[in-house]
Amino acid sequence: MANYSAELDDVFVALADPTRRGVVRRLGQGPASVGDLAGAFPMTLPSFLKHVRTLESAGLIRTTKAGRVRTCVLNRERLAVVEDWLAEQRAVWQQRTDRLDRFVTEEQP
Amino acid sequence: MANYSAELDDVFVALADPTRRGVVRRLGQGPASVGDLAGAFPMTLPSFLKHVRTLESAGLIRTTKAGRVRTCVLNRERLAVVEDWLAEQRAVWQQRTDRLDRFVTEEQP
Repeated sequence: MANYSAELDDVFVALADPTRRGVVRRLGQGPASVGDLAGAFPMTLPSFLKHVRTLESAGLIRTTKAGRVRTCVLNRERLAVVEDWLAEQRAVWQQRTDRLDRFVTEEQP
Repeated sequence: MANYSAELDDVFVALADPTRRGVVRRLGQGPASVGDLAGAFPMTLPSFLKHVRTLESAGLIRTTKAGRVRTCVLNRERLAVVEDWLAEQRAVWQQRTDRLDRFVTEEQP
């Protein structure tokens, strides 16, 4: 649970930036090289590489190097921790609704 | 779109902390006073209030004051921006799968 929490921290931080969300979206279409990705964002390559590293250390993307080309691949499973967390919240809300329903039903004559 | 992006930044930053996620979860069960909420987290009240303010400025909770008691309520709609963003990513993946399907089908003799 502590690890799950730290994972969520990292994933949410990684997603709290429009460039990094843009990279996640682009990689949803398929793998891409860092060079090709960088061309789509108006910043220097060193700045862009920082975003790539943040995504990689959060586990949202994986990168591999062949010769001089580093290729990035989306790790979809990592986004599942966000989906799971949201599902958990919906379950809490549902329990509350069920409790309110029971309360109203039991109050009826 | 720019506003939507800024909203997402704020919501993801707000969710990138276990205390703030704990507050969201607790408020999913129903409204609670700041005092009652604070008791559940091992930190000083000023530290806890900072988390409350971060959640409030991200729009994830609303607070109202009656006398000396400040009550917090979850704003579920705000979590929908995260759900919408995830749905958008799944749509991108689906388009990719459809393209791959077409490619494979068209390659068949």
